[in-house]
Amino acid sequence: MENIAPATPASVFVKMVLGAWQQQNTRADELVAQLSDEQILQETAPGRNTGIYLFGHLAAVNDGLFTLLGIGKRLHPELDEIFLDSPDKSGKKFPPIDEIKKCWQEINIALTDKFNEMQGSEWFEKHSAVSAEDFAKEPHRNKLNTIITRTAHQAYHLGQMNYLKA
Amino acid sequence: MENIAPATPASVFVKMVLGAWQQQNTRADELVAQLSDEQILQETAPGRNTGIYLFGHLAAVNDGLFTLLGIGKRLHPELDEIFLDSPDKSGKKFPPIDEIKKCWQEINIALTDKFNEMQGSEWFEKHSAVSAEDFAKEPHRNKLNTIITRTAHQAYHLGQMNYLKA
Repeated sequence: MENIAPATPASVFVKMVLGAWQQQNTRADELVAQLSDEQILQETAPGRNTGIYLFGHLAAVNDGLFTLLGIGKRLHPELDEIFLDSPDKSGKKFPPIDEIKKCWQEINIALTDKFNEMQGSEWFEKHSAVSAEDFAKEPHRNKLNTIITRTAHQAYHLGQMNYLKA
Repeated sequence: MENIAPATPASVFVKMVLGAWQQQNTRADELVAQLSDEQILQETAPGRNTGIYLFGHLAAVNDGLFTLLGIGKRLHPELDEIFLDSPDKSGKKFPPIDEIKKCWQEINIALTDKFNEMQGSEWFEKHSAVSAEDFAKEPHRNKLNTIITRTAHQAYHLGQMNYLKA
C-alpha cells in the first residue's frame, strides 16, 4: 500500500485499528479480574444475558477471527455451540469460568502473535466472508474492517458486562 | 468521500472508519425511534444511568468533535454541563427528550457535512487534544483515531441503552 502522506504509512492505520481492538480486550481483562465468579454468573440486568454468557460469546467471536481472516486454525471452536449458536439460558451447560478465562487468554495471545506477523498490505485484502466480486466493488470490506466492527461489538457487550460490578 | 474515484487506500481507510461511526449513529437513531419517552426516562438497569442521560451524553460527545477536530463551532455546548460534567441524577434539569433528539440530529447532520468536506490527508493530522511533540512520536493519535475511539464509546453505551427495550 502506498503512503497517503509522507508521515502516514499503512502501518499507522493498522496500529490505530489494532490498538482500539486491543484496548477492548484489555478492558475485558480488567473487568473480569475485578468480578467474583458469583458476579460473572449473574444477569447483567434483570432478564438479560448473564456475564458468563457474554464473556464466552466474546471469546467465541474473537476465536472466529482465525477463520475470517484466514490466519490459522481456531483454538476453541467448541465455544460456538454454546455462546454463538445458542442464546443464553438455552439449557446448554457452560464450561467453568476459569476455563473460559483460559480460552479467552489463549485466543487473544495467539491472535496478537498472528497479527504481529501480518504484513500491512494483508490487512487490506478481502476477508473470507466477502466474495471476490463484491470486494472489487467494495474494497473497504477488508480484513482490517472486520477488526473495526469487532471492536464496536466488544465495546457494546462490555457496556453491559460493566453492570455486573457492585 | 463517496465521490472520490478511483478509490485509493487512504480513502478506503477513511471510509471504513467513518462508516463504522455512522453505523453507531444509525443504531442509536433506530433504538431511540423504537422507545417511548417513558422508556427513555427509565434506568437502563437498576441503579444505573437513565436512557435520557446516556442519549444526551452521546449527543454532547459527538458535539465535542467539532472542537476536537477543529472543524467548526459546536452547536450545543450547553449539553456539557448536564451530560458530561455532571453524572446522572445530579439534580440538573434535563431538556425535554424531543429537544435532545433535535440536538442529536442537528449535530450528526452538521458533522457528516463537515466530514464530507474534509480531505483524506486532514484525517491524519493531529487533533486538538494532543501536543505537536507527542504527535511527532505517536502519529496514530490523529483526527481519524478520535473517530475510532468515539465509535467504541457509542457502542458501549448503546449496549446499555438497548436494555431500555421491553
